Amino acid sequence: MIEESEELIAHMRYAIHLAKKAWGQTHTNPMVGAIIVEEGQIVSEGYHKRSGGKHAEIIALESYEGSPKEETTLFVTLEPCSSEGRTGACTAAIIASGIKHVVIGTLDPNPRHRGGGIALLESAGITVKVGVLEEECREMNMIFNHWIVHKRPFCAIKLAMTIDGCMAASTGHSKWVTGEVARKDVMSWRRLFPAIAVTQNTVSSDNPKLTSRIEDEIFSSRRFVFNRELRDLENYKNYHLFTDDFKSATTVVYGDKASKDHVKTLEANGIESWKINESEGKLDIGEFLRLCAEKEIPGIFIEPGPKLATDLIANGLADYLFIYQAPKLLIDQKGYSLGVDRFSQVMDESIELIDIKRQQFGEDALIRGYLKP
Amino acid sequence: MIEESEELIAHMRYAIHLAKKAWGQTHTNPMVGAIIVEEGQIVSEGYHKRSGGKHAEIIALESYEGSPKEETTLFVTLEPCSSEGRTGACTAAIIASGIKHVVIGTLDPNPRHRGGGIALLESAGITVKVGVLEEECREMNMIFNHWIVHKRPFCAIKLAMTIDGCMAASTGHSKWVTGEVARKDVMSWRRLFPAIAVTQNTVSSDNPKLTSRIEDEIFSSRRFVFNRELRDLENYKNYHLFTDDFKSATTVVYGDKASKDHVKTLEANGIESWKINESEGKLDIGEFLRLCAEKEIPGIFIEPGPKLATDLIANGLADYLFIYQAPKLLIDQKGYSLGVDRFSQVMDESIELIDIKRQQFGEDALIRGYLKP
Repeated sequence: MIEESEELIAHMRYAIHLAKKAWGQTHTNPMVGAIIVEEGQIVSEGYHKRSGGKHAEIIALESYEGSPKEETTLFVTLEPCSSEGRTGACTAAIIASGIKHVVIGTLDPNPRHRGGGIALLESAGITVKVGVLEEECREMNMIFNHWIVHKRPFCAIKLAMTIDGCMAASTGHSKWVTGEVARKDVMSWRRLFPAIAVTQNTVSSDNPKLTSRIEDEIFSSRRFVFNRELRDLENYKNYHLFTDDFKSATTVVYGDKASKDHVKTLEANGIESWKINESEGKLDIGEFLRLCAEKEIPGIFIEPGPKLATDLIANGLADYLFIYQAPKLLIDQKGYSLGVDRFSQVMDESIELIDIKRQQFGEDALIRGYLKP
Repeated sequence: MIEESEELIAHMRYAIHLAKKAWGQTHTNPMVGAIIVEEGQIVSEGYHKRSGGKHAEIIALESYEGSPKEETTLFVTLEPCSSEGRTGACTAAIIASGIKHVVIGTLDPNPRHRGGGIALLESAGITVKVGVLEEECREMNMIFNHWIVHKRPFCAIKLAMTIDGCMAASTGHSKWVTGEVARKDVMSWRRLFPAIAVTQNTVSSDNPKLTSRIEDEIFSSRRFVFNRELRDLENYKNYHLFTDDFKSATTVVYGDKASKDHVKTLEANGIESWKINESEGKLDIGEFLRLCAEKEIPGIFIEPGPKLATDLIANGLADYLFIYQAPKLLIDQKGYSLGVDRFSQVMDESIELIDIKRQQFGEDALIRGYLKP
């Protein structure tokens, strides 16, 4: 067994690096990386490339050409599965390999399986160490961790605002709140999530692409446009979302009270659409999320305006918040900010973020975390 | 001359540590620390204790018992003064000492003297190195640096707010926005500034002490209470600011339209006060700051409510902002936030913070920086 903790950490870091090669490509599965280490050297490696593909441990074991020595150790970022899936249980393969030491990053997030893989390995006489770079191993699979437990999409919101809480000037102008470096970081989250959503307002005013360009590869997740009344249909041809190379990945989400003529226009133009119920003059986003679940979309990255963001947060529909914060103040009571029309009594009525991460991008900061239910 | 940069930095760090022993006690002078180093050892040290007291370099030189060797080096956090003051020019004393190497943290912030000390030292054959831990050396004297150039007080504002920009609930409730660790950090800034100001609103609702307790020493800066109309006089006896051990350090600032009866009550109770002009139904804080300048108060730490904060920021009266930000959202359009009643057109109308520092205190963050003029 490898004892030195610095070495353990370095190996697990490399396994994480491997896992992340499939950043955003494994849904509804998690990203997982695995390596086999002998005498301090990595002698085999693997990562899970896509749902339905081989598990990381299996790839690492299959490409391992030696025969295990006493100290040969398998590192894997996530607890190996103990149930026979499409690709066979990883625990069985590890036991069969003869490797006697396993280092695991984080436990299976599914309470039904949590610890089951470890128990199987240990009962076969394998030494198991758990929790090396635990947080990193867990965090990269925030979407999977949520999906596997709740079976509804992990709903994340991205906002950009000033320190004084403004997302746009009184006119609605918001280009740009944050700087280029922060906006570039958004690309990698767009790449992670299997789906992105914006409102028609955003499409009409900003004409966004919602693609992510990372290392010269342009990628688009599935794109949703919330357009309750099917407004501004006449301009569809002007918008990237309906004309670019990924236009087939765009779905318009409209309300059940939208005009039939508009629906016909939509269909005549070959634009995919989902009809959902309206409630109180708003799209029922809860229903939208249930539809996403049915279609096995495990996570959605919403880039909303202030109104939709407020709705999602105030109604407990958002699970996670990405707030890019620019160190400036708009000092305008009519600027667009979050908030419902209520009369709060005490500060304790606030909604807290938990498991907070802070990063800096140029002069801007990213504050992200789970919305405390 | 000491060549190794790590050693240089370690020595300058110690000189900064010495300087900060007089944290908030040297106004209107800067904090300065000095050491003399021989063969890697600190053989003498000094720091400026209070205005009128000896300069750091002089103390270090006077307690230096050896005679300078070739490599004997004086470290000082701030460029030595070249003009004869109450305590004699430091440059002359350094030259007279025979020390041939001087390491300086940061230049004199006064454009009239900037570089003058170095020129004198160099013309006497002394090697001078400038800029070791420059930012730290400069930043600890943010008040002095401003005062010496502008001859008006360095006006800093402290705010606590949620990520969505709320400073209080709709009711005005604000206890507490941030956690204990963040609130403790405020103590050290209160200790740094020679004066603190709050509004009578804050006194009436929170009854603050505005003292700072650091290492069991309780300290109070001069305290100002903005009370334009001299409201709530009948309750003075209930408030710490007018009854505690530091009550003589409290000054009420009222407007020229306050009732004469109220002014009499104030005087009858022996409460010190300043009368200033009102303009548009508000205290003319610009005049207040000019009065502070006359009284040689080089810096003021204002802990304002949303209205006063907005006024100070929007009217360019604030120089520096301390924003303690709690990772929570009030989601209330009626919560108290910053902002004037205007209609901004574009995000570029924002007021930027520059030279930004970010720190974490528990779950909260402090974002501080200069308001870009």
